[in-house]
Amino acid sequence: MKSGTKAVVLLSGGLDSTTVLAIAKSRRYDLYAMTFRYGQKHSIEVKRAQDIAAAAGVADHKIVDINLGVFGGSALTGDIAIPKDRSADEITHGIPITYVPARNTIFLSFTLAWAEVLGCNDIFIGVNAVDYSGYPDCRPEFIAAYEKMANLATQAGVEGEEKLTIHTPLSGMSKAEIIRTGIDLGVDYSLTLSCYDPNESGAACGHCDSCQLRKKGFREADITDVTVY
Amino acid sequence: MKSGTKAVVLLSGGLDSTTVLAIAKSRRYDLYAMTFRYGQKHSIEVKRAQDIAAAAGVADHKIVDINLGVFGGSALTGDIAIPKDRSADEITHGIPITYVPARNTIFLSFTLAWAEVLGCNDIFIGVNAVDYSGYPDCRPEFIAAYEKMANLATQAGVEGEEKLTIHTPLSGMSKAEIIRTGIDLGVDYSLTLSCYDPNESGAACGHCDSCQLRKKGFREADITDVTVY
Repeated sequence: MKSGTKAVVLLSGGLDSTTVLAIAKSRRYDLYAMTFRYGQKHSIEVKRAQDIAAAAGVADHKIVDINLGVFGGSALTGDIAIPKDRSADEITHGIPITYVPARNTIFLSFTLAWAEVLGCNDIFIGVNAVDYSGYPDCRPEFIAAYEKMANLATQAGVEGEEKLTIHTPLSGMSKAEIIRTGIDLGVDYSLTLSCYDPNESGAACGHCDSCQLRKKGFREADITDVTVY
Repeated sequence: MKSGTKAVVLLSGGLDSTTVLAIAKSRRYDLYAMTFRYGQKHSIEVKRAQDIAAAAGVADHKIVDINLGVFGGSALTGDIAIPKDRSADEITHGIPITYVPARNTIFLSFTLAWAEVLGCNDIFIGVNAVDYSGYPDCRPEFIAAYEKMANLATQAGVEGEEKLTIHTPLSGMSKAEIIRTGIDLGVDYSLTLSCYDPNESGAACGHCDSCQLRKKGFREADITDVTVY
């Protein structure tokens, strides 16, 4: 990859997307980060995303305001309580109440708009289908279908220009592999926030599914977890 | 179609989407209309959409605020002037500057979220590939790819439940056929606004591509155009 090629990177402020940003940087893309304030209870992650984007030296960082809370249907945006202390089996089977309907579809659609305006053919997203929460829009078959659709949605698609690619470098990795990859690339995981239910000062709860997946990842990677719980 | 089945209908307040709403109503769906305030200069259409939704007796109408103007790249949202008095040939060839990058992709993604929460498998959109402006995200191949993606994006897709359908009843119709269909269904086209550049009181300019396509449609349908130009 030659320098000067642009990539739009979805950045939540969490462990996965921060690792993806570092991977895109290591491939020498010019980085355009995009973060959403979508009505999530843990909106403190947006501030983390800003710090992470600045540390990575992105060319631009857009914070997009959309309110997914108007639809309801999720513990992340509505009045439903965030589940705590579920077993590993519960976490990785079925679709939990923290699932936000069509969230990745919506997020990717905004990256597509920005990529088209930037003249960019590379979008990065930190979906992962190993140590994940069973969200349908994290699966490889979803991403493949999205990419196909995206190539028909835009001007470039009509004109048969360069093909748009949705990069999912974490797709086949365990959480431990993701962390090891990030450490090798110099990621400072103390900047990241995985927790769905942090307190006001940003300390992680340690008990939600996302905290548990994170803890397990650090444990399996045999790396000290610097997260403040 | 039995009554009690829900449909989410994209409603801009224009001629096409208003006709689609009437078609969905004639098929006895319970109507859930969705309209976007997306930074369009002609945001007066949102008020029209509210009147149209009320007249159609929808069960709910969501107005979603998103700012597509942050990306630029379109005459509909940015500082670029709306083209006027283009020839029929200019209007129907190539992708014009009024194209908003990924707009239908984004709009459909929000309908998908709402449909999932409502437990609804039917989404209606007024895309048309005959008398249209050459936008890539109005073509049947785009809609087909979107539908395929959408069925992988959601909980229903994972669980192999009922298939989600993106209905495009206007896809093969000329503008004249759309108008005749709407008239047969009792649509009051005086409520609709097609113009990209209306004045403050909502009168249409009569010269933008959308006004020209509308005028041509009424002329070819041999129906009096009640629009105030």
